[in-house]
Amino acid sequence: MNIQELTSGLAQSVRSSRPEASIEAMREAKKGLLDFTAASFAGRNDSGVEKLLNLIEGEGGVPIAPLIGQGKKASPSQSALLNGFIAHALDFDDVHSDVRGHPSAVILPALIASAAARRDGGRFLGAYIVGVEVMARLGESIGRHHYEKGWHNTGTLGAIAAACAIGYAEELSQEELERAIGFAAAQAGGMRVQFGTEMKPLHAGLAAQSALFAVKLAQTGFGGSHTALDGKQGFFSLYGDLEKAESTFLSNWGAPWRIVQPGLWFKIYPFCSAAHHAADAIRKLVVQHGISAGKTDRIEVVFPPGGDAALTERQPETGEEGRFSVEYVIALALHGRELTAAGHFNNEPIPQNIQAYLPRIHRIYDAEIQPDPQAVPKGRFTIVRVFLSDGRVYEARVNCPMGAPGNGLSEEDIKEKLQLALQGDERKAASLVTAIEQADIQSYLSHI
Amino acid sequence: MNIQELTSGLAQSVRSSRPEASIEAMREAKKGLLDFTAASFAGRNDSGVEKLLNLIEGEGGVPIAPLIGQGKKASPSQSALLNGFIAHALDFDDVHSDVRGHPSAVILPALIASAAARRDGGRFLGAYIVGVEVMARLGESIGRHHYEKGWHNTGTLGAIAAACAIGYAEELSQEELERAIGFAAAQAGGMRVQFGTEMKPLHAGLAAQSALFAVKLAQTGFGGSHTALDGKQGFFSLYGDLEKAESTFLSNWGAPWRIVQPGLWFKIYPFCSAAHHAADAIRKLVVQHGISAGKTDRIEVVFPPGGDAALTERQPETGEEGRFSVEYVIALALHGRELTAAGHFNNEPIPQNIQAYLPRIHRIYDAEIQPDPQAVPKGRFTIVRVFLSDGRVYEARVNCPMGAPGNGLSEEDIKEKLQLALQGDERKAASLVTAIEQADIQSYLSHI
Repeated sequence: MNIQELTSGLAQSVRSSRPEASIEAMREAKKGLLDFTAASFAGRNDSGVEKLLNLIEGEGGVPIAPLIGQGKKASPSQSALLNGFIAHALDFDDVHSDVRGHPSAVILPALIASAAARRDGGRFLGAYIVGVEVMARLGESIGRHHYEKGWHNTGTLGAIAAACAIGYAEELSQEELERAIGFAAAQAGGMRVQFGTEMKPLHAGLAAQSALFAVKLAQTGFGGSHTALDGKQGFFSLYGDLEKAESTFLSNWGAPWRIVQPGLWFKIYPFCSAAHHAADAIRKLVVQHGISAGKTDRIEVVFPPGGDAALTERQPETGEEGRFSVEYVIALALHGRELTAAGHFNNEPIPQNIQAYLPRIHRIYDAEIQPDPQAVPKGRFTIVRVFLSDGRVYEARVNCPMGAPGNGLSEEDIKEKLQLALQGDERKAASLVTAIEQADIQSYLSHI
Repeated sequence: MNIQELTSGLAQSVRSSRPEASIEAMREAKKGLLDFTAASFAGRNDSGVEKLLNLIEGEGGVPIAPLIGQGKKASPSQSALLNGFIAHALDFDDVHSDVRGHPSAVILPALIASAAARRDGGRFLGAYIVGVEVMARLGESIGRHHYEKGWHNTGTLGAIAAACAIGYAEELSQEELERAIGFAAAQAGGMRVQFGTEMKPLHAGLAAQSALFAVKLAQTGFGGSHTALDGKQGFFSLYGDLEKAESTFLSNWGAPWRIVQPGLWFKIYPFCSAAHHAADAIRKLVVQHGISAGKTDRIEVVFPPGGDAALTERQPETGEEGRFSVEYVIALALHGRELTAAGHFNNEPIPQNIQAYLPRIHRIYDAEIQPDPQAVPKGRFTIVRVFLSDGRVYEARVNCPMGAPGNGLSEEDIKEKLQLALQGDERKAASLVTAIEQADIQSYLSHI
């Protein structure tokens, strides 16, 4: 294949994929769907949901696609938007280190909105595996500067990935899929300045909605570029690094599938994954040494340079902003709060005593410290160092936090996450688990 | 004002605007609305319209906002999308040299979809003036590299401008407008690789739709950044040039209004404005010297470097692609075709004899030639040089094409454009003209 033909090459790779033949990939896809469902039910009552529901109800539309946890339906486009928001509302959904963002919160809402999924769902899990593959490769090929510059990868990469996923589910022709990729690319957007606000999770919903629209445009014969990822004015040139993409984007497709290796990272905490290393470290110190806020003078949090780029809030005022604050997470733990509880991360003001504590926590960057070869994400670590008032100093280092691949949640852990999210509705939890285990998408859709 | 506060400064400027007090600006706004209406009716039967209508009808929605020339209504969001497409479908709508794109095809569909416009329309024309002001300033401040890199300014700048226009019409608070600007910025997209396809005009519709959604999110209290244009990770940094924006974006707001100076450019030809200089030049040569395709060996078209960036097609295969081909435009004129006729620019194949003629036409770039101080756009010109088979050589230079500010269409010319677009339905044309002259937006909306 001509390395310059990224768009047609992507369409070919997607169309010739047979992910259903991989037992491992299918197992991970089922875990991914289970975790997505847990994260979505946990976020179903977020205050943003009602606002979006009001807008959707004002617009009207044919109610044929489910809205997770709402007990009602909406148009496919509206369901893609709202389900993407719900899945990502608490930042409790999976991340993927190649993506540097949230694949399932875009891809699965897009698939749930697709006519093929509603019709029979036969290619649903395969399409999800393909979508993760595309999004991981986009994330890797777009280059690290993309995120660091200020783009929100979930938004900017999600629409193309989800369009490929739907394209696989609906068996688009080569020609249709090339155009769908272009339609999605032309709608790519999302900015990290929205982190800590309701707009951040809505980026996931917008990307899912754009993907669905892209596929529908392609299916209706709407005219568009067949080469939107390619060349000096294409997607990679505009948003990232064309040269890198030409050398890496499509090599070794599905070998192994990216949903397996490096794999999805399922969260045990409802906040940004970049603070999970520190969360594990401080919990360990609290348990081992019985330390608490009152006994500490100063906390240092050591990152490799850039390792805290997603943690945009140093002095958050609400729990929602606190999802992006390592200071807030550490302060919560030192005040005896349970970091797994979503209630600390809603849009209520942060208690005065915790806000007052935040300035004691200092970020340090150290380029000399060697990352662990097994670190997740690659090259990342966090060291938390606590200076007690009595002169003692303790520290803990975490290279691979709980939930991350290599230290991952078991299927049982994820089922527990789902039960917790469903607040004890065990019957519903059991129905969902069974539907996912049996890959019965019709049954799954009828229970969300 | 702190020059770094571009978002709050923009919101302040929009909210404190009183464009209705400027007789000149209001006159230009009425001309702009008239020309937009003409371009839209001319494009109402474009083949893309039916495809989009099918998608819209499949989605359903409360039909309360008009679809231009369709005799039916749709949801506000759907009307913003489709009307934006219709207005820009033929590339027959106005451009603005500061924008380097199409302001009215985004701003007016967004305003037509706004609840305030449907309720009374009192601030409609003022809001349009404000929208053009914002889009012109965004275009100037984002820097020329934005377009040259491959972004489509109509899409990338349109959503923010149109959100400000609706924000003015609906009298958003400072705080709401800041968030609306951020919601629009986070949806900014559009790529020049889509030029010559149906997706190009859809960028206008998508920007209008994003603007409407941005304002609705703001009104419903949805949380978002108040500073999305600012700082190292804000809109200007991501898409353009923050430093330039900080020194130019908000200075001398409305003095004069950009809709007056440099003013909108109303097209007499239904193709990309970058080919209008050459169109005027070749028509002049044909009339003065009676030349035609059969008598010519070679044609040279001389541009300043980059002056043909929008003209992406050198060997177009359809009339639609031909909208972005100076070669096609010149070849048409030399084959005796009327360049003002939209029929040459639809998605039919280009006749074989005209395709075969295109390779005789050569582009040349000359950085030595002095642009005329009155040139439109600034720094632009085109020279067409014809080498006849009998050895004679003729040339014509155009600095400011017909329709451009300084050589603009009169109100009568635009009325004629409307009548032509309405194919002789003089009663409808008269109703629309009267409604616009009287700034009676209710009546206007009932006649489109």
